[in-house]
Amino acid sequence: MRAVDIIIKKRDRGELTREEIEFFVKGFASGEIPDYQASAFAMAVVLNGMTPRETTDLTLAMAHSGQMLDLSDVVDFAVDKHSSGGVGDKTSIVVLPVVVACGLPVGKMSGRGLGFSGGTLDKMESIPGYRVDLTTEEFKRQLKEKGIVLSGQSLDLAPADGKLYALRDVTGTVQSIPLIASSIMCKKLAGGAQAIVLDVKTGLGAFMTTLEEARQLASLMVDIGKLAEREVVALLSDMNQPLGCAVGNALEVIEAIETLKGGGPADFREHCLHIAAHMLVLGKRAKTLEEARKMAEAAIASGAALEKLRVLVEAQGGDVRYVDDIGRFPPAKFIEVVKAPRSGYISQVHARAVGEAAVALGAGRTKKSDPIDHAVGFVIHKKVGDRVEAGEPLFTVHANDAAKLAEARLAVLNAYAFSDVKVEPLPLFYDG
Amino acid sequence: MRAVDIIIKKRDRGELTREEIEFFVKGFASGEIPDYQASAFAMAVVLNGMTPRETTDLTLAMAHSGQMLDLSDVVDFAVDKHSSGGVGDKTSIVVLPVVVACGLPVGKMSGRGLGFSGGTLDKMESIPGYRVDLTTEEFKRQLKEKGIVLSGQSLDLAPADGKLYALRDVTGTVQSIPLIASSIMCKKLAGGAQAIVLDVKTGLGAFMTTLEEARQLASLMVDIGKLAEREVVALLSDMNQPLGCAVGNALEVIEAIETLKGGGPADFREHCLHIAAHMLVLGKRAKTLEEARKMAEAAIASGAALEKLRVLVEAQGGDVRYVDDIGRFPPAKFIEVVKAPRSGYISQVHARAVGEAAVALGAGRTKKSDPIDHAVGFVIHKKVGDRVEAGEPLFTVHANDAAKLAEARLAVLNAYAFSDVKVEPLPLFYDG
Repeated sequence: MRAVDIIIKKRDRGELTREEIEFFVKGFASGEIPDYQASAFAMAVVLNGMTPRETTDLTLAMAHSGQMLDLSDVVDFAVDKHSSGGVGDKTSIVVLPVVVACGLPVGKMSGRGLGFSGGTLDKMESIPGYRVDLTTEEFKRQLKEKGIVLSGQSLDLAPADGKLYALRDVTGTVQSIPLIASSIMCKKLAGGAQAIVLDVKTGLGAFMTTLEEARQLASLMVDIGKLAEREVVALLSDMNQPLGCAVGNALEVIEAIETLKGGGPADFREHCLHIAAHMLVLGKRAKTLEEARKMAEAAIASGAALEKLRVLVEAQGGDVRYVDDIGRFPPAKFIEVVKAPRSGYISQVHARAVGEAAVALGAGRTKKSDPIDHAVGFVIHKKVGDRVEAGEPLFTVHANDAAKLAEARLAVLNAYAFSDVKVEPLPLFYDG
Repeated sequence: MRAVDIIIKKRDRGELTREEIEFFVKGFASGEIPDYQASAFAMAVVLNGMTPRETTDLTLAMAHSGQMLDLSDVVDFAVDKHSSGGVGDKTSIVVLPVVVACGLPVGKMSGRGLGFSGGTLDKMESIPGYRVDLTTEEFKRQLKEKGIVLSGQSLDLAPADGKLYALRDVTGTVQSIPLIASSIMCKKLAGGAQAIVLDVKTGLGAFMTTLEEARQLASLMVDIGKLAEREVVALLSDMNQPLGCAVGNALEVIEAIETLKGGGPADFREHCLHIAAHMLVLGKRAKTLEEARKMAEAAIASGAALEKLRVLVEAQGGDVRYVDDIGRFPPAKFIEVVKAPRSGYISQVHARAVGEAAVALGAGRTKKSDPIDHAVGFVIHKKVGDRVEAGEPLFTVHANDAAKLAEARLAVLNAYAFSDVKVEPLPLFYDG
């Protein structure tokens, strides 16, 4: 078998066999197949596509390119969740404690922020001492003893995917539904997930900007799950505007804690309950979504979910006093409430523009080595469908630099659009 | 400007600007743009194409990636020819002496064999002492003093093309009409050609197997010529069966010498006169093709053309006695006449199969470092449309190894197809 013949087959719209895909992924991971062949292959896949079967074989080959985590000795059934990323998406920080409080242990590996999109690890590090670098042994022991883990990748999971992703990033081959789907799914499979709730974001602040693309991605990942014998539920959720109100690391953790205390923005709370319910059904802690949702609501109402967040933070070395008293999070130097420049109905809060403005404030990275400023970001007070009067608070900027504050104010004002006629709120979820 | 954005633009079917193409070619030639970006770009071009304008910009950028040869101080107008390669194509060895004898000086840079397709340099080296490694100064001096040169590339012409071709070869990105056209044309432009006759082969023994592809390639190269302000004539010629009768290095030189003496196979002679006539018209030595053709015929009849071959061989250090007496070429150890296994009309002499059989005998290379056996090859006695009776000579094998002889006999017998009903001869040229 020769790499060039596999490239030519895909160039000519052929369907690759499992053996061909395994040969290519193994060769690429070991370095026998050079980057220049892998990038030509990736471009052929971008332009000619892959069938669900090919994509599943690619996913499994990448998953098996490194160690495979086996959680069967610590949990009866490993349920995971994955969000395709967006602005203000602090869902895991609420959903994990909720489902764990309902009796479903979950050990989740999260990521860092990528471009305008935030990352759960960066958010959790707003809590002093919180460790996201657990070893595999620590991960498994904590999952067994505490039933809850939220850490970074402890193993070298799916190294072929990491290598391919780095190459795709510089060769214009990121935008491919089969390549995106296999990249997401291979890490979940290598991480030991037996069932997965996928939260596929769509809209202005998502990587899939159209509903059609998001549907294709979701459907392909469900197909991969079936073919790889995993239970997969894919939800399509809106990312045209930020999720909830807070955008920025500590601000989002505070909003998550408030949500676990029974408060928080209604849209975010609803989003979390929906995801949690699906996880509980997949994990066989409830028979129906209705039953699961009641369990989740009860876990919040009783304080059991918040207690699980305390357990999590304590187990991973974080200062649990921050959970008990959100006043401990150090505020940014400048906190400015920006008022609505006009009256009307909000017709847009451009999620990507808000996310990019948060990165510019220091909440995210433009280079991998950039430090994160945990205190900065925004709280959005008015969202799509809301009525606002001129002079009412529209959003609050938290900044540590006066010049950046001015830029951020302008950027988020520009992210808003107003309408004189009534505007419907955006849906939280779309039909799959 | 970033390489990845140029790749993405081509991936998304955009038309690249001249600046973008120059940026990419310069960066690739200098090594700033790595191979993995160039191969992804090449695959995007293979699958999404390029306009004639983009292809011309690519051609010019590659031509300017190295030294540009200027022949204006040695000839009044530099006319070149190029054949896209095939089996039994010894045309340059006849055409150059003919047009030079008609008063049009020509300095041509030729290549070596590539795969099943022979190369003029390998053929000329059948003549002991013949040098194909002239320096630029030697090339120009000989062109000025003798009016005829047939050598290898003396300069590092279009190094970006060489680098890109090597990459294309291993990334499944050879098959692209814009990339093939620019690769051919950039070397001709860098070599100083002001007018070019392109002999684009089509058929079973050509790189363009269908007439449609060959037409597209020819038409694109004519467009490039126009946009680059060169006069270009593209001819489409048949390569379903070998050109002429001889296939193999010394055998082809002998056939060329016989043709210059007024003999040689009728099809090959006709092919050479047609190409020569176009060169003479482009070079303004004749007003019409009819006039040019008469000049070419006269140059053969008078012996003037043969004399120019003597001049060429002598100037480049070759033993001119081989031109005067073809009996000096050392024969192969085994010369076997293979007889027709049946009677009928010849309906196929598969050019590629014959070319591959010649390579297997040692006439070509399977690796770049392989030595060439100049004596081996075939003489084809019956071609498409010919009537043959069982037992009549069909072809002759010249071999230096008994086992290889047996293989070659079988391979060429298999290259033949017979018909009970009359078969028309193949055309020499097709309409453009």
